[in-house]
Amino acid sequence: MSSPTATLLISCPDQPGLVAKMANFIYANGGNIIHADQHTDFLAGLFLTRIEWQLEGFNLPRDIIGAAFRAIAQPLNATWQLHFSDALPRLAVWVSQQDHCLYDLLWRQRAGELQAEIPLILSNHSKLAPIAEQFGIDFHHLPITPETKAAQEAQQLQLLHDYRIDLVVLAKYMQVLTADFIHTFPSVINIHHSFLPAFAGANPYQRAYERGVKIIGATAHYVTQDLDEGPIIEQDVVRVSHRDQVADLIRKGKDLERMVLARAVRLHLQNRVLVYGNRTVVFA
Amino acid sequence: MSSPTATLLISCPDQPGLVAKMANFIYANGGNIIHADQHTDFLAGLFLTRIEWQLEGFNLPRDIIGAAFRAIAQPLNATWQLHFSDALPRLAVWVSQQDHCLYDLLWRQRAGELQAEIPLILSNHSKLAPIAEQFGIDFHHLPITPETKAAQEAQQLQLLHDYRIDLVVLAKYMQVLTADFIHTFPSVINIHHSFLPAFAGANPYQRAYERGVKIIGATAHYVTQDLDEGPIIEQDVVRVSHRDQVADLIRKGKDLERMVLARAVRLHLQNRVLVYGNRTVVFA
Amino acid sequence: MSSPTATLLISCPDQPGLVAKMANFIYANGGNIIHADQHTDFLAGLFLTRIEWQLEGFNLPRDIIGAAFRAIAQPLNATWQLHFSDALPRLAVWVSQQDHCLYDLLWRQRAGELQAEIPLILSNHSKLAPIAEQFGIDFHHLPITPETKAAQEAQQLQLLHDYRIDLVVLAKYMQVLTADFIHTFPSVINIHHSFLPAFAGANPYQRAYERGVKIIGATAHYVTQDLDEGPIIEQDVVRVSHRDQVADLIRKGKDLERMVLARAVRLHLQNRVLVYGNRTVVFA
Amino acid sequence: MSSPTATLLISCPDQPGLVAKMANFIYANGGNIIHADQHTDFLAGLFLTRIEWQLEGFNLPRDIIGAAFRAIAQPLNATWQLHFSDALPRLAVWVSQQDHCLYDLLWRQRAGELQAEIPLILSNHSKLAPIAEQFGIDFHHLPITPETKAAQEAQQLQLLHDYRIDLVVLAKYMQVLTADFIHTFPSVINIHHSFLPAFAGANPYQRAYERGVKIIGATAHYVTQDLDEGPIIEQDVVRVSHRDQVADLIRKGKDLERMVLARAVRLHLQNRVLVYGNRTVVFA
Repeated sequence: MSSPTATLLISCPDQPGLVAKMANFIYANGGNIIHADQHTDFLAGLFLTRIEWQLEGFNLPRDIIGAAFRAIAQPLNATWQLHFSDALPRLAVWVSQQDHCLYDLLWRQRAGELQAEIPLILSNHSKLAPIAEQFGIDFHHLPITPETKAAQEAQQLQLLHDYRIDLVVLAKYMQVLTADFIHTFPSVINIHHSFLPAFAGANPYQRAYERGVKIIGATAHYVTQDLDEGPIIEQDVVRVSHRDQVADLIRKGKDLERMVLARAVRLHLQNRVLVYGNRTVVFA
Repeated sequence: MSSPTATLLISCPDQPGLVAKMANFIYANGGNIIHADQHTDFLAGLFLTRIEWQLEGFNLPRDIIGAAFRAIAQPLNATWQLHFSDALPRLAVWVSQQDHCLYDLLWRQRAGELQAEIPLILSNHSKLAPIAEQFGIDFHHLPITPETKAAQEAQQLQLLHDYRIDLVVLAKYMQVLTADFIHTFPSVINIHHSFLPAFAGANPYQRAYERGVKIIGATAHYVTQDLDEGPIIEQDVVRVSHRDQVADLIRKGKDLERMVLARAVRLHLQNRVLVYGNRTVVFA
Repeated sequence: MSSPTATLLISCPDQPGLVAKMANFIYANGGNIIHADQHTDFLAGLFLTRIEWQLEGFNLPRDIIGAAFRAIAQPLNATWQLHFSDALPRLAVWVSQQDHCLYDLLWRQRAGELQAEIPLILSNHSKLAPIAEQFGIDFHHLPITPETKAAQEAQQLQLLHDYRIDLVVLAKYMQVLTADFIHTFPSVINIHHSFLPAFAGANPYQRAYERGVKIIGATAHYVTQDLDEGPIIEQDVVRVSHRDQVADLIRKGKDLERMVLARAVRLHLQNRVLVYGNRTVVFA
Repeated sequence: MSSPTATLLISCPDQPGLVAKMANFIYANGGNIIHADQHTDFLAGLFLTRIEWQLEGFNLPRDIIGAAFRAIAQPLNATWQLHFSDALPRLAVWVSQQDHCLYDLLWRQRAGELQAEIPLILSNHSKLAPIAEQFGIDFHHLPITPETKAAQEAQQLQLLHDYRIDLVVLAKYMQVLTADFIHTFPSVINIHHSFLPAFAGANPYQRAYERGVKIIGATAHYVTQDLDEGPIIEQDVVRVSHRDQVADLIRKGKDLERMVLARAVRLHLQNRVLVYGNRTVVFA
């Protein structure tokens, strides 16, 4: 399956014939579908689908596919994205002082688990610069204070532009992004160190300890203007006991955080995640 | 979603256009697909799919659908099944002396979780007859000895025929079915009280204890001529520790067994399981 | 291990020599410890322990053990409970209209998993009376309206007194108990159908669906005056996906609820749960 | 809890008074126990315990504790180990060509999760030498052929001696150790990429795929002369589906392997694992 593929992620109002119309589009042009999945949200009256097909043998040139599909999509009031598997998205990883998620993402990218380029690491601290150097990635240190936040966000956006970044991954970046930032650059995945919606906000492990929960979690989600309220991509949990102090929760949570974040980023990069409303469909 | 649906489970050699052809068949006849899922096993060169659509508004009468689809399936060398959601399959539950899986299946059937009728309980012991009576289900006691096994299997097959049984569920039935029986009546789901292929055969909990494993499991599978070797539908596990004696493994295992068996039976009844070779595709 | 045992659950300010003092008490009187576990909460400066020993061969008669241990406990400012394994606690199960947890508890009690008597089922609806009858247990129907709540709670307390109930298990009892009730009868375990503290309060499955979580949970806890805020005994979770409607969450949640509630009740009955502050130590 | 502690791991034939005798030994010498756990295997007639106490305020000097405890242990026929929390064990990590477990262990050691020194990495390939260099650890390349195996094992043992190694961690070292080696150096932890005893031996992921299992696992165990048969320390699992190819099983398994191995090594380093027969007690 190493030959390049095209993937369509589509959502539109539900009506009969949608699967047929979309499958016909691929078939009529000589394409071989290797993955097709669909979901209908009957409450929302919404049809959502992911179709992936081999470009080898497909009769339409790449730069025509979008235009050709638009003719089908428009009468259906569909919103859609088209991706090619050999077009590597460019990631910026944002960190503060903790290195576990950063290390994990870099290792996975090198191991071929994440089909992406990572040309940029950005931090409000300088502590993790040596890791960037070790992996040969540009590191930009942009400290944030309440006074400098606006100016630094402008700088951050400039860097995302300069490095042609497609996706920002907040890998334990402990600053809140402003609504303006998200409005300008909406493609951001965050890892929150709790089982949302439990313990949204600050110090989730401390609060989980105080509440005496028997299980803790981590949540990867798209960032929206409402803190920790964005569409959830992936969650996972681990059991804790009365023997676990806050430091143990943090340690166990680190493993969760890096696993959950890596899975979410991978799903996103494979174009398996479709957001609608505040929910995600994950075509896993 | 309570209006009746039809479901096709199809497998055929992979080739371009399969999704389109099958979706067109539904669409051309006015059907609205509510669930479509597919899987391609590239190693085996096999395409497998499940398509479910609403019968309301579908132009073909029920008794014609099969014949009409045959015209499409034959040139594709497809094997396929057609099911209607309002045709309740008839289950026979087979037990020995343990009641937990039996109780669980009967409770779930009553609660509406299992869309099936259960007209028959069959056992090689008489112990669970009171439960059958309590739920108003016929109970047949067919004790098995090496000498009587052949005759009793004939009797069992006769009962399956008389009660028009579609599926046998071995809910802790501690006898091995012969190859002849399976050949005559192949639709049998078993729950094995281990994480197969670990601890196939007798006394899995005792052997798990002796091996000192830290996790135990249960496995629901279709029964084939090779003991505990049939296609796996569902598995689950639970953590154990050095504090757990064999009796604790048995107790924890009971919860696993009833959950795993119930999930497998439900998936089967919803026509979500497609067997090929010794594997299953579960369109969950 | 079927000979009767005594169990001490003790908490006291931490100081050197506690394990030695308590173990010596058992040993000096000829007892054989079969389970000893301890936990120190260094932040709270608290020592908590569970000691279980065989009564066979123990030199102190049962009715003297408490007085004898008091002499040790008092200088340590310890609070403690003494239980005998052959003294079966008496449970009242409270339900509303859902039967899954009730069935499960009754089945487990009969199967020997719950060492307790269940002489009383109490409900604000009459719907589940047939189950009580089927298991030969008294059923009292006490409907609740805002106007009658106070009078009915008095009636409930009277019944708990008449039946000499030791523990109330709220097995999907959909009424809130008043602070007065809890003050009078504090030994109450509840199952909440969410992963607390997420989705405390009403309609957790609906809200979990709306939030788009990828995992749902259930929580068993002691009931306090603050709704869904009591000490957590046990939690568990199950994965859900975009395919799961609210009805699916409810169905999957039922399995969680009955497992988690049963585990919590069993832990309580085995005197393995020690509450301090709003937390529990579970000597599992 | 950062002041140094002593830990005793003890096993002996069960008899009354063991907890008291051991706790008295600590108390009589002015020690404050911070963790005590015990287990009795009634079938084996064996008592096993772990006691950890603060050295601050303990009246016996370190070099006397062992001799003093021997006087207690001998009449009980006890076998025991004494460890001090500030004596860092020295680890050798053995690898072949896969880097995920190695990276993970090195990261955790740096992050303070593993209280040990790692002065030596040993491999039958040269591929991972750059990682050793990056972390500033000596790397020895000892290629193995059937002809050179005996000589290379002698060389390996010499290196373990020279580097004063306490524990060998086989972090995806794809060679079998001989019985002679294990006899000479028995302290070895291995990670096996299956849920033992399922798929012992070679190519477990391929075989798991072929069997069509729905869950895969990983197992960390002490190495004995019988391949994949040693005492299990820790296991974990992850769900797979028909969509997962062998490459997906390998990828998912890597996450399991590094988590399970790291947990097992950490438990060993904290002196929480006690082996008896072919089983472990894990005082977690």
